[in-house]
Amino acid sequence: MEFDSLFNAQLKALKDEGNYRIFAELERRCGQFPTAKSYDDDAPDEVTVWCSNDYLGMGQHEAVRQTMKDTVDQCGAGAGGTRNISGTNHHHVRLEAELADLHGKEAALLFTSGYVSNWAALSTLGSRLPDAIIVSDALNHASMIEGIRHSRARKVIWKHNDPEDLDRKLAALPANAPKIVAFESVYSMDGDICPMQEIVEVAEKHRAMTYLDEVHAVGLYGPRGGGISEREGLADRITLIEGTLGKAFGCMGGYISGSRALCDFIRSFASGFIFTTALPPAVAAAAQTSIAHLKVSQTERELHQRQVARLRQMLNARGIPHMDNPSHIIPVMIKDPVKCRMLADILMNDYGIYVQPINYPTVPKGTERLRFTPSPLHTDADLNRLVEALTVLWKQCAIAHEVA
Amino acid sequence: MEFDSLFNAQLKALKDEGNYRIFAELERRCGQFPTAKSYDDDAPDEVTVWCSNDYLGMGQHEAVRQTMKDTVDQCGAGAGGTRNISGTNHHHVRLEAELADLHGKEAALLFTSGYVSNWAALSTLGSRLPDAIIVSDALNHASMIEGIRHSRARKVIWKHNDPEDLDRKLAALPANAPKIVAFESVYSMDGDICPMQEIVEVAEKHRAMTYLDEVHAVGLYGPRGGGISEREGLADRITLIEGTLGKAFGCMGGYISGSRALCDFIRSFASGFIFTTALPPAVAAAAQTSIAHLKVSQTERELHQRQVARLRQMLNARGIPHMDNPSHIIPVMIKDPVKCRMLADILMNDYGIYVQPINYPTVPKGTERLRFTPSPLHTDADLNRLVEALTVLWKQCAIAHEVA
Repeated sequence: MEFDSLFNAQLKALKDEGNYRIFAELERRCGQFPTAKSYDDDAPDEVTVWCSNDYLGMGQHEAVRQTMKDTVDQCGAGAGGTRNISGTNHHHVRLEAELADLHGKEAALLFTSGYVSNWAALSTLGSRLPDAIIVSDALNHASMIEGIRHSRARKVIWKHNDPEDLDRKLAALPANAPKIVAFESVYSMDGDICPMQEIVEVAEKHRAMTYLDEVHAVGLYGPRGGGISEREGLADRITLIEGTLGKAFGCMGGYISGSRALCDFIRSFASGFIFTTALPPAVAAAAQTSIAHLKVSQTERELHQRQVARLRQMLNARGIPHMDNPSHIIPVMIKDPVKCRMLADILMNDYGIYVQPINYPTVPKGTERLRFTPSPLHTDADLNRLVEALTVLWKQCAIAHEVA
Repeated sequence: MEFDSLFNAQLKALKDEGNYRIFAELERRCGQFPTAKSYDDDAPDEVTVWCSNDYLGMGQHEAVRQTMKDTVDQCGAGAGGTRNISGTNHHHVRLEAELADLHGKEAALLFTSGYVSNWAALSTLGSRLPDAIIVSDALNHASMIEGIRHSRARKVIWKHNDPEDLDRKLAALPANAPKIVAFESVYSMDGDICPMQEIVEVAEKHRAMTYLDEVHAVGLYGPRGGGISEREGLADRITLIEGTLGKAFGCMGGYISGSRALCDFIRSFASGFIFTTALPPAVAAAAQTSIAHLKVSQTERELHQRQVARLRQMLNARGIPHMDNPSHIIPVMIKDPVKCRMLADILMNDYGIYVQPINYPTVPKGTERLRFTPSPLHTDADLNRLVEALTVLWKQCAIAHEVA
């Protein structure tokens, strides 16, 4: 069987529709974030990164790096095993305590990534709670969708961010079945934020468990960086809060937090937790330093919000359409995969501005976009350069100036 | 709904059958491997780790640590994004080239873990190749089983390490369906090694693709650490070789290697690859240093094999039963979860010897075991202490001295 020809046929289809992905090869440089060296032939040597999820630049923070290096010298590079078989390091245990405290929960459980935490937790809950029904927001992340799918539990989709529809959907379900309402706080592609209080009230009314993904909010929102659930004073009413160490905290890994019984349950039964090598102790220690810093420091969050607001104002002043939302994510809609890639290429090659075109399957076809994430490290001069470039391009490319 | 009571009921059942897992909290100490500080109240402060998957101790290797620290200072702690959205670092690209070279393949693709690489690659192959049938060894790892399950492709199980059964199973399948023969080289729980040549020949006869998991072999076998497929001169006849950076290479992460089209296909369609933050550049760089070292140095592999052989001889001399196998993994069968835990507790608390009891679901019920993995860093004195302790225990506990 000629397997390569089967693969190539599907890759060709992807290319024909403009959805073939080309990765920008970069080398971010500590002390110079958001600047990175580019290894792409057509791009300038130095580019400004405008689409990082290291939202606050904590990946280059001196204390975070120092902890990581010290722990490499203390404990070595890798964990050396699964959590059960020699891989649990003191630094994992300390980080789990830090995360439980961050969300005001009894316990937390680390995973190798946010993707795995969602996939493993939802697939375990859905498959091991008899007759469980997972009630899932229509725009939940791929990791949640795959976890639900893998569980083979009954799934009911409710309209995105619509508590009334959630209420109707829950009311139609058997009263005694365990129900899990799965949703996110900040949706990363549109940057919208869920009506959390209404959702929690509806879930409580129907005695459903709440499963909240805060990966695009932890570190960024709430007085201690506990996310939207902290900011809204709702964390204690959410059953499970899932988050990541790989975005605002600048490291790698995912986690869940909740009751001791819940975390112990997932710890004991989730294949994706049990059968995998633990995070490097140095990564765990670095993440703990980052979390502890952002629990007390407001500087990064305040400057982040300032630069986000400023970029929005500047785009408005130039009539460059962007999605209105209450978060730090600024999507500029292009709505065509080929144009989206073309604009990103011009920005990269002519202006040294790196923003990845966001195409299917990350967003639905026809909603392709450029997605800007200003950080506290983007200076006002960086913002000016970006807006000048976009202004020129908008004129040249004659893209419709409608607000998306 | 009282969710905690649902969780606690299942946890209680686990405890009642002796399968509740208690993690040993350790702190491995660079320069002192395999010694670790123990944080468990009942254990001595310092223990010798006898069950690490950092098989060669590369996690504490000076060059590996130095690369990791240098790259933290160069690029920061985390990658800052998915591979597609700002997360591809020069160090990922270099590591993928190193891995392709290790296995003599056109390309390689990194994942956040070996678990994710198996799960994502098999679920993508099974779901996207029309009418694909996955023909899976009966003892494949959980990550492969979950990947196959997630793909919803037709699955056919063949008898463990039995090429004749594989031949019969393949012969019974439709000639024109794409078939994927999935198996491992070293099976980690019994330490047996597959009859690779026979399996490859059977697969070729039926024009099936071969999917080989080498996670417990890479770095350890073959003149350059390319695994059993390198040692047997079969790598070029295997379609896809999957491996890990978290065991013999001492770091974290997983990968596949194969044709350019195959890797591009998985890169382009695998949810578990696309929607997750990339490995920290420092982890990728450290892994590359480790791989490059083990491509040319035989010292670690030779001393590893020497200590493995020596421990087997010493166990034989004392009449302590252990599974005979041609690998570096020495399972001592206990066949009862409660006794297995009890023996491990005595070894830990009275002798400072840490070996995790291996219970269900890692192994089938009734095959519980202690599983020793000697490394080049275990001295002859370490081996003596272990065998003395086991000898005393074997007399005290009156465990049947049958060879398992």
